[in-house]
Amino acid sequence: MPPKSPLAPASFPVMPRIAGVRLAAGACGVRYKDRTDVLLVELAPGTTVAGVLTKSLTASAPVEWCRARLGVGRGRALVVNSGNANAFTGKSGDRATMATASAVGKLVGCTKREIFLASTGVIGEPLPAERIVAGIGEVHAHLTDAAWPAAAAAIMTTDTFPKGASRTARIGNATVSINGIAKGSGMIAPDMATMLAFVFTDAKLPATVLRRLLKDGADRSFNSITVDSDTSTSDTLLLFATGKGPAHPRIAAPGDARLRDFKAKLDEVLLDLALQVVRDGEGAQKLIRISVTGAASQAAARRIGLAIANSPLVKTAIAGEDANWGRIVMAVGKAGEKANRDRMRIRMGGITIASRGERVRNFDEAPVAEHMKGREIDVEVDVGVGRAGAVVWTCDLTHGYIDINADYRS
Amino acid sequence: MPPKSPLAPASFPVMPRIAGVRLAAGACGVRYKDRTDVLLVELAPGTTVAGVLTKSLTASAPVEWCRARLGVGRGRALVVNSGNANAFTGKSGDRATMATASAVGKLVGCTKREIFLASTGVIGEPLPAERIVAGIGEVHAHLTDAAWPAAAAAIMTTDTFPKGASRTARIGNATVSINGIAKGSGMIAPDMATMLAFVFTDAKLPATVLRRLLKDGADRSFNSITVDSDTSTSDTLLLFATGKGPAHPRIAAPGDARLRDFKAKLDEVLLDLALQVVRDGEGAQKLIRISVTGAASQAAARRIGLAIANSPLVKTAIAGEDANWGRIVMAVGKAGEKANRDRMRIRMGGITIASRGERVRNFDEAPVAEHMKGREIDVEVDVGVGRAGAVVWTCDLTHGYIDINADYRS
Repeated sequence: MPPKSPLAPASFPVMPRIAGVRLAAGACGVRYKDRTDVLLVELAPGTTVAGVLTKSLTASAPVEWCRARLGVGRGRALVVNSGNANAFTGKSGDRATMATASAVGKLVGCTKREIFLASTGVIGEPLPAERIVAGIGEVHAHLTDAAWPAAAAAIMTTDTFPKGASRTARIGNATVSINGIAKGSGMIAPDMATMLAFVFTDAKLPATVLRRLLKDGADRSFNSITVDSDTSTSDTLLLFATGKGPAHPRIAAPGDARLRDFKAKLDEVLLDLALQVVRDGEGAQKLIRISVTGAASQAAARRIGLAIANSPLVKTAIAGEDANWGRIVMAVGKAGEKANRDRMRIRMGGITIASRGERVRNFDEAPVAEHMKGREIDVEVDVGVGRAGAVVWTCDLTHGYIDINADYRS
Repeated sequence: MPPKSPLAPASFPVMPRIAGVRLAAGACGVRYKDRTDVLLVELAPGTTVAGVLTKSLTASAPVEWCRARLGVGRGRALVVNSGNANAFTGKSGDRATMATASAVGKLVGCTKREIFLASTGVIGEPLPAERIVAGIGEVHAHLTDAAWPAAAAAIMTTDTFPKGASRTARIGNATVSINGIAKGSGMIAPDMATMLAFVFTDAKLPATVLRRLLKDGADRSFNSITVDSDTSTSDTLLLFATGKGPAHPRIAAPGDARLRDFKAKLDEVLLDLALQVVRDGEGAQKLIRISVTGAASQAAARRIGLAIANSPLVKTAIAGEDANWGRIVMAVGKAGEKANRDRMRIRMGGITIASRGERVRNFDEAPVAEHMKGREIDVEVDVGVGRAGAVVWTCDLTHGYIDINADYRS
């Protein structure tokens, strides 16, 4: 296993109990030996749910399972396994989701249509669901309201640290809680750039409201990050609301002003988790923030940002601590969005390197070179055609990425 | 300098003289020490020219220079420098092209509008054109009709071997010759995926005919290769016809049946050069051929092929000699083109791994694993929705790519 990413947070956050949420992790031997690989989350009756799923046309069986369940917006349990993605597994993949959901439905006492599933790991190998079915009773027997670190650890694949985030939020006079866990470190790109992320709150919110909040938040977080431009077949982001927290005013519409603080805190949890995914980008040594301004539209700005963020030449230059801004120009040029070569401005580490389409006169590279040695690299590009902007995040491309991915299955 | 690519051809090809073409390489010290870095090609009066140039919106000054000259379709000289791309150099870039073209026009005895220019190397640094101007007289004094290997060597940057290709073709009863040279090993992707490539023939063909032949040939060669998905600001492919070869029937239209053999041989030269570029992909250890069939259209097939070819996860898996076909499924899924997950078929090394959306029963990985150890990897994907196909080529993504690109400027 590779060492912990140098960009990892100092520690796993303190995560409070969420009323109506009980968790347990177990070792079912899906693929890995000597580690937990199945997470079971039981949710109180009445829990609402919304999701954002991969747009991949070769989505996994559990993704299709969730897609079919999200219309109703009710969930009583979540089962996640690591080690095998149950993707491109044909009919056996559908049988595996069915078997898992049936087994968990019996334990929890609900229909299988209220069970949500996610799988992550190798694609194209049949998922041995019988191992999950055989072990899930034992996992269920250990449900507690405190197992957040264990939950985050059980869903890891090539992750080098477990990912969690937590906030509290005010709705009216009540204080509700929001906890999230995530996994992901490669095959990360919009849309949607998740990997797996699961967020839970004790607020009482209808599924229609959750859907809007989650979609907006995902665009500014998981859909604004990229590690390697590869979109997983398994990307799943789910938000569950148990309604078992302190009583708060009834909320019927996502535009309700009393939701403002909750929205802000949910966005913080989503962005926190998304940036932890980038910080754990396979082989990542540096977190790169790319701010694009002066674009024709927000969508154009994001596409230009992602063209820069996904460029292997930009990412390797930054890995080499080289302020090779010429490659940023190249990436802007290939994005296919309007940009004015002769009005472009590029800043790195807050220092203007080029403006009006050429390097600034008497440019002193020393302070930029110093910035490039740091762990967090800041790139600003103004493309000189409009007033819209966007921010995207990525990491550098290093030998570590090759090490991890040239030998993942063995 | 990295060692010669293991995928390099055994030797530089024998290239005949092309009547009306004289070449010389010189060392003008643009950036490199102790090597040639400027190529001058003088073309006989009456030479016609066509070109395909990068679609980058941040194209280099010499690309814009060529774009403005191609309408007339006449060329008397070509000047290429390595070491500096003269891209994103603002007004100083335009002054540099003007100065170079003027100096060469005087030597050759033509207007500067008949001079074609190309530059390759670092982006964003002012091109010291005065060094080219100072040295070009000396280069001109050494023009010969035999300097093809030296020409191919002078335009190299991170290339590990010089690239040349040559064919003869029949037009009527006459045998004409076609010689091409190219450079490129990183920042290679459609459109258009060139790097620099220059092709010369002694046939007598109007510029309108050259344009059509070159565009068609480029789509099946340079626009079907990718090394790292990055499109250069400098991609330039030029085709010159001197008309000084053996007399042949007059050709007025690209559809003329008497052009059939010439077209085929031109396509061979273009594909030969394009594949040499992939074989010299930065850090490449394996040449990967990806054939996509069963697609809704040829364009869709090519986009799916390029999604596979550009996937860092596919490329690193192949670098690790791992037949990780799950990542191919992932790449098909993210291409955004129609594909039927449950009718897909994947073959590697001619062996069917998956069909009808899942791994074949009793799949024996041993012969595929053997294929993966070779230098040339063959991937076939049928996406199960239509009858169109396309072939693209790429190379694997290795530690060598990181080594080269994390430290290019220093």
